[in-house]
Amino acid sequence: MPIDPQKALGAKLPPIESSYNEDKLILYALGVGVGIGQSQVDPKKVLQYTYENGLKALPTYGVIPIFSGLGSLFDVPGLSFNPMMLLHGEQYTEVIEPMPTSAEIVTEGVISGVYDKGKGALITMDFVTTNKATKKPLFKNTMGVFIRGEGGFGGDAKSPEPGNVPPDRAPDKTVEYPTQTYQALLYRLSGDKNPLHVDPMMAKMGGFDVPILHGLCTFGNVGRAAIEAYADNEPERFKSIQVRFSKPVFPGETIVTQMWQVSDKEIVCKARVKERDTDVITNAKVTLR
Amino acid sequence: MPIDPQKALGAKLPPIESSYNEDKLILYALGVGVGIGQSQVDPKKVLQYTYENGLKALPTYGVIPIFSGLGSLFDVPGLSFNPMMLLHGEQYTEVIEPMPTSAEIVTEGVISGVYDKGKGALITMDFVTTNKATKKPLFKNTMGVFIRGEGGFGGDAKSPEPGNVPPDRAPDKTVEYPTQTYQALLYRLSGDKNPLHVDPMMAKMGGFDVPILHGLCTFGNVGRAAIEAYADNEPERFKSIQVRFSKPVFPGETIVTQMWQVSDKEIVCKARVKERDTDVITNAKVTLR
Repeated sequence: MPIDPQKALGAKLPPIESSYNEDKLILYALGVGVGIGQSQVDPKKVLQYTYENGLKALPTYGVIPIFSGLGSLFDVPGLSFNPMMLLHGEQYTEVIEPMPTSAEIVTEGVISGVYDKGKGALITMDFVTTNKATKKPLFKNTMGVFIRGEGGFGGDAKSPEPGNVPPDRAPDKTVEYPTQTYQALLYRLSGDKNPLHVDPMMAKMGGFDVPILHGLCTFGNVGRAAIEAYADNEPERFKSIQVRFSKPVFPGETIVTQMWQVSDKEIVCKARVKERDTDVITNAKVTLR
Repeated sequence: MPIDPQKALGAKLPPIESSYNEDKLILYALGVGVGIGQSQVDPKKVLQYTYENGLKALPTYGVIPIFSGLGSLFDVPGLSFNPMMLLHGEQYTEVIEPMPTSAEIVTEGVISGVYDKGKGALITMDFVTTNKATKKPLFKNTMGVFIRGEGGFGGDAKSPEPGNVPPDRAPDKTVEYPTQTYQALLYRLSGDKNPLHVDPMMAKMGGFDVPILHGLCTFGNVGRAAIEAYADNEPERFKSIQVRFSKPVFPGETIVTQMWQVSDKEIVCKARVKERDTDVITNAKVTLR
């Protein structure tokens, strides 16, 4: 049996040691599109994320450290599947303490959910990234991956409801960010080297006409849009982001983030592609401090 | 006496140990503008410089290794000056052997010329970068820097003529590459962190309204234009490039490279900014194999 929830649930992933620095934060910011169509000297929209003098981390960077550990998913007992069938379905990322601009970090993960969805399996993983200098947790991540074709093993089909449904009114605020045709080529230098995002042949094998943008690049745009619209471009006020990936974005398209403030600190969001009038991220929420 | 040619001439700079890899080559290629306004799946114009599967180095990368060593210029006996008065005037870069996509390298430099130009001093440095694996030279560089205000020390005023004057006819070929407003922010991740290219205040101190693009970013565009126009986009046919930096480019402007084939393997070039109809690189030549 390829998926055996009894064996997989609670399994720990090997700890991932990594580090980041100012250059990596700047590369990430440019990778998610900071600066496109903006004045190079704009202090809040551009320079604070891209110049080491006064640099602030774009907080969605907190998702990056879990990436180099994903390969170990295939070594978990009770999880046997074709990696090409894996889709990144949902992501929650939280920045726990004020984010330094460089850190040595260690990330520990555990399989927190295995759900039989009929057409496939939904597997969730919880990660905690610790700042080695302070020994305190720095980021929390929950990642949900959908394994196409691996359902029917008889486990629990009831995964948590995604929630974050926008109120029945026009968005309170909207922010548009264009992307470049080469956006995925730049974004992937932050660590997700999946060839689906660069290789025309691999994209076709995955069912796409051309390579698609990383879902997490769009995710970074949504986080940044909320910081611009609701936190005066002060990234230190960002606490967490939750999203569901619903459709791909193609590099060069414009990401429109629609936002609804539902409480003092909570912004329900949705991201759409302007050119195709299509939802790409749904059931999303940014929480501020 | 701040500049003393007797002492400075022939002085060796401390060897610079460094390395590069696929990610650094890709970052450099995107930094000089590969992919702007082009299809993400174009194999020759985009993917060969930006995807590790089949990656080829953009050969103007050969100038990068000399950068981390420039600080030692201020320790050379007989050279005492204000670093803010230094301008990069001329650059020659040659790729000696076929360029691997990763290498451990060591760069050795020597002060090869000190010229009294009246208004300032022209200092030239010759560098050889050796591939530590093969022990063979990989790149040769000659860099000419002009130190404003440091002339009048009575040395030799006769520096080599720049040459590479275009023939008296319209360019044989022309290639246009746009840049982005954030181009310098991306280019500087390849190693030249001079704040003149990012910091509005430092730019003003240097006499510019806004931060200027790195001359070596324009240089990379000229090299790439010649490879596109005269070498069927095959970077392995590039041998060397020589340029004189005449005026700054502002990020977001379009670089137009005009080219004249003057012999089988020699292309005399000039780069202009389209928006201001101004020469920015002159007396330039690309030599092919």
